[in-house]
Amino acid sequence: MTALPIDLNADLGEGFGRWHLTDDAALLTVVTSANVACGFHAGDAATMRRVCDLAAAHGVRIGAQVSYRDLAGFGRRAMDVPPEELAAEVAYQIGALQVFARAAGSRVAYVKPHGALYNRVVHDAGQAAAVVDGVLLAGDGAGLPVLGLPGSRLLEAAAGAGLPVVAEAFADRAYTRAGTLVPRSEDGALVTDPGAVVERSVGLARSGVVTSRCGHDISVRARSLCLHGDTPGAVDLARRVRAELDRAGVRVEAFA
Amino acid sequence: MTALPIDLNADLGEGFGRWHLTDDAALLTVVTSANVACGFHAGDAATMRRVCDLAAAHGVRIGAQVSYRDLAGFGRRAMDVPPEELAAEVAYQIGALQVFARAAGSRVAYVKPHGALYNRVVHDAGQAAAVVDGVLLAGDGAGLPVLGLPGSRLLEAAAGAGLPVVAEAFADRAYTRAGTLVPRSEDGALVTDPGAVVERSVGLARSGVVTSRCGHDISVRARSLCLHGDTPGAVDLARRVRAELDRAGVRVEAFA
Amino acid sequence: MTALPIDLNADLGEGFGRWHLTDDAALLTVVTSANVACGFHAGDAATMRRVCDLAAAHGVRIGAQVSYRDLAGFGRRAMDVPPEELAAEVAYQIGALQVFARAAGSRVAYVKPHGALYNRVVHDAGQAAAVVDGVLLAGDGAGLPVLGLPGSRLLEAAAGAGLPVVAEAFADRAYTRAGTLVPRSEDGALVTDPGAVVERSVGLARSGVVTSRCGHDISVRARSLCLHGDTPGAVDLARRVRAELDRAGVRVEAFA
Amino acid sequence: MTALPIDLNADLGEGFGRWHLTDDAALLTVVTSANVACGFHAGDAATMRRVCDLAAAHGVRIGAQVSYRDLAGFGRRAMDVPPEELAAEVAYQIGALQVFARAAGSRVAYVKPHGALYNRVVHDAGQAAAVVDGVLLAGDGAGLPVLGLPGSRLLEAAAGAGLPVVAEAFADRAYTRAGTLVPRSEDGALVTDPGAVVERSVGLARSGVVTSRCGHDISVRARSLCLHGDTPGAVDLARRVRAELDRAGVRVEAFA
Repeated sequence: MTALPIDLNADLGEGFGRWHLTDDAALLTVVTSANVACGFHAGDAATMRRVCDLAAAHGVRIGAQVSYRDLAGFGRRAMDVPPEELAAEVAYQIGALQVFARAAGSRVAYVKPHGALYNRVVHDAGQAAAVVDGVLLAGDGAGLPVLGLPGSRLLEAAAGAGLPVVAEAFADRAYTRAGTLVPRSEDGALVTDPGAVVERSVGLARSGVVTSRCGHDISVRARSLCLHGDTPGAVDLARRVRAELDRAGVRVEAFA
Repeated sequence: MTALPIDLNADLGEGFGRWHLTDDAALLTVVTSANVACGFHAGDAATMRRVCDLAAAHGVRIGAQVSYRDLAGFGRRAMDVPPEELAAEVAYQIGALQVFARAAGSRVAYVKPHGALYNRVVHDAGQAAAVVDGVLLAGDGAGLPVLGLPGSRLLEAAAGAGLPVVAEAFADRAYTRAGTLVPRSEDGALVTDPGAVVERSVGLARSGVVTSRCGHDISVRARSLCLHGDTPGAVDLARRVRAELDRAGVRVEAFA
Repeated sequence: MTALPIDLNADLGEGFGRWHLTDDAALLTVVTSANVACGFHAGDAATMRRVCDLAAAHGVRIGAQVSYRDLAGFGRRAMDVPPEELAAEVAYQIGALQVFARAAGSRVAYVKPHGALYNRVVHDAGQAAAVVDGVLLAGDGAGLPVLGLPGSRLLEAAAGAGLPVVAEAFADRAYTRAGTLVPRSEDGALVTDPGAVVERSVGLARSGVVTSRCGHDISVRARSLCLHGDTPGAVDLARRVRAELDRAGVRVEAFA
Repeated sequence: MTALPIDLNADLGEGFGRWHLTDDAALLTVVTSANVACGFHAGDAATMRRVCDLAAAHGVRIGAQVSYRDLAGFGRRAMDVPPEELAAEVAYQIGALQVFARAAGSRVAYVKPHGALYNRVVHDAGQAAAVVDGVLLAGDGAGLPVLGLPGSRLLEAAAGAGLPVVAEAFADRAYTRAGTLVPRSEDGALVTDPGAVVERSVGLARSGVVTSRCGHDISVRARSLCLHGDTPGAVDLARRVRAELDRAGVRVEAFA
C-alpha cells in the first residue's frame, strides 16, 4: 500500500517584540504548514510580517494560529469568553494575518486554535461554534479549513458549517487506547525520547497507527503531524522526523 | 457656481469592551464616512464588527482609523516607533478591520491616522512614509485612499506612492492666516460656539473659505469635513451641520 | 434593639485613560468604602491616584478591587489562572494601589475581588486560596481584611489564614430561600425598582432580613452593603439608600 | 590611594510570562544591585516575585526599573506622556514591586528608568521632573535614591527634590571627550571586545578614568557600573568583570 501524503505543521512567530521563542527560519525549512501567531498570545505585527515573508519564500503554507487575548499567560489560561466576543476576536486575528500573507504573495490557508483555546474546543461546543463563526466571518466566503484534533467539537462544528476539516496527530504525545490524548497532567503524557518521536511519526504518517500508553496498536488517522517548535532541541528533532519520513517514502506535503 | 460635494467623516467605535464613547448609531445617520477604531487606541473586535454592520446598513463608507499602540493613552501620546514596526502595525489594524467590513458586505475604503499619529505625520516625513508603507502593505494592490491634513507630509508621501489622497478640514478648529490649524495648546484653538461651527461648515463646503483667527477669509480646499463625535452635544451639532449643508444645497457625499 | 452599623461599598475608578464609567466624586459623598480598580480590569494609574486623593479627602476607606488581567473583557471573563500567577497578580495590584493610598495620607484597608474573579472564588477553593495568598503577600504582616460573599470559599480561606473577613449583601440582587444570590442568568435576578432597593437596604442593614425570591423572609447577615455605581441612575439611588438609612437611624460606618 | 567601593547593577526579570530574556539566577551571583522590571516593558507579577526572592536570598539590593507602558516595544520607543500620567505610572510600578521586595524580606531601595525613558530624561526636564514626582509619590517619605547618568536632567531634578542620586557608568559604551555617551546610532558606540570591557570596568571603578573615543583619558565619576544582562555571553562577561574587580582590590558593594 502506498502511504498518503502527510503535512507537518508547527507553531511559528511566537515571540513578541523583544522576545523570541521559535527558530522560525530553521523550522520553515522542515514544515509544510506554519501556524503563525496573530498577536493575542504572541506575534507582534513586525514578526507576523517577517514570518509570512519567510514562509512564502519557502513555499510553506500559512495558517492563522488564533488564541484567547492573553499575552501574560501566552494563551494558556482558559477564558470564559462570550461567543460573540470570541467569534469577533478570532476573525480579528485572521484578518490581521491575511494582510501579511497577501503582501508576501501568499494567503491564510487555514486556521488552528492555540493553547487553552485548542484544548477548550475539544469538548466545549459553545466555544467551538464561536471559533467557527469567527472563521466564517473572516473567510469572506472562501471556507477556510480548520486544523484540530479528530473527534473534537471544533472539527464537528466546522464540518457542520461546511468548512473543510483537517485532523492532526502528535508524535510526542501519549495516546489512550481509545485514541484520545493522555492529559498533560498525567505521568507519561509526553514522549520525550527523540528516537521514539521519530518512529511514532513514521508510523502515524505511513499507516495511521501508533502504540497507545498501554501498549496496543491503535489507529489515529491524521492528515497532519504537529511538531513542537518551542522546546530545546526542537529544530533537530523536526529535521530528524522529516528525514525519516523522506527515507520511509512518505510524501511530505501540505493539505489541499 | 455649483458647490462640489462634501464628505462628512467622524471617528466611530471608540469604545473598548465595557467602555463607550461615541454614539455610533446616531452619528451613522449623519456622516458619509466612518473612521472606525481598529483596536490600538480603542475598538475591541466585537465593537468593530457592530460598527461595520451598522455603517454598511446606512450606506456609510468604512475607513480604518489607525493609531499608535496605546490603549492607556487613547493614542494621544506621540511615540517614536521605528518605521518597520509602524508600517506593520498600521497594516495589522487595517487587515483586522477588513474582515468586519467585508463580512458586512462593504470594504475598507480609506485610511486615516488617529490622535498623536495624525499630528505627528503632519511634519514627520519618516513616520508619514511608514504609515504609507503600511497602507500599501494592506492594500493588496488596491491603492487605499489616505485621508489627512492638506499640506501634511502624510498626504505628500501618499501621493508620491501613487495613493489617492483626500484633504479634510475642521469646522471646529481655528485656522491661522497661512491656512494651518492653530495648535490646541493655544487660546482660541477650538471653535466652541455651535452656530459658528455650523456656519463655518457651510462656508468650507460651499466655497472652501473660512475666517482665520485674525479675521481674514482664507481658502481651505477640502473634500471632507471632520465632525467630532466624542464631545457633549456632538450628535446634535453633527445633525445641525448636516441639515444646514442640505439647506444650502451642498451635496453631502462620500469621496470616490 | 439598636441596629449595628452598616458599611456602604461601591466600585470606583472603573474608567481607563480616556474612558469613564463611575461618577467617583458623587459616589464618594455617599459610600464609606471605595473599591478602587487597580489596572487589571480598569483603573489607569492617574485615575487610581485621583480616586485615592478624593477618597481620603472624604474620609472614605480605600480597598483594592483586584481582578483577572482582562481589560478587553472588563474582568468579567473567568480565567483559569494558575495559583502562583494569580497570587502574584493579586499582590501586584494591591501594591500599586498602596502607593496612591499612602500618598493620599490613607492606606489600603481591605481587598475585594472584581467581576468574574468574585464569582469564581465563591465556589473555587483553589483560586480562593490563591487570592488569599496574594493578600498575604501584599499585606506585609498587616492582615488585610477580605470583603466578599458570606459562605464563599474566599471568606473561608481568608478566615483560615487568619485574615479578618467582612460579609457583604446586595440590596439589588434577588436571594434564594437558602440565602444565596439568584444567578444573573435567571429571570428576576436583579431588583430594578429603586423603591424596592431602598427598602431592602434598610431591612438588610437594620435587621439582617430580606425577602427571598419566593417570598420568605430570610436572614442575611452582612457588615457591608454593595451599591452599584456603573448603572444609569446609580448616584441618585445610592443617595436615596443613604438618606433612608440615616432616617431609619442606622449608623453608616466603615468596618473596623 | 584606596579605591572607593563600586556597585554593579544589571537589568533583571526582563521576561514576560512565557518569554525569558535575562539569566536572573546567574547574574544575581555577580551584581550587587538588581534593576527589576515592573510590568510596563517586561516583568509579569510572578517573575517579579521570583526575582525579588532570589535577590533577597543573595543579599542583592532591589531597585525598580520603571518604563513607559510599552510591552510591544520593550519600552524602547520614546513616548510623549503628559507629566501627571507619567508620574502616576512610575509610582504604580514602584508600588507593585514594593510588595514583592517586602514579601522577600527586603525593600525597593532605588529607582532607575529603563530604555527610552532613561534616554529621554537625560535631556527632557519635564519628563525628568515627572519621574521624580513618581518616585516621591511612591517613596512614602523615604526618599528613594535615583540611579542614572551623571549630568542628566533626571539626577538634577532628583537632587533638587532632595532625593539621593547615584551616578552610573557603562564599561561597554564609548564616551565622548566631554564625558557623555556616544549615541548608539553612531559607529563605535558599543565596546564589544570583552577584554576591553573588563579593562574599562577596572579603570572606571579604581580611578574613575576611561579612554574616550578619540583616545583621551577622561574622568567619569560613578558609584555604580551597569552590566548588560540581555546580550549573548552576558553572564560570562559579568563574571569576568567581577573577578577582575576583586583581583584589582576594588570593593564591590551596593551604594548606601
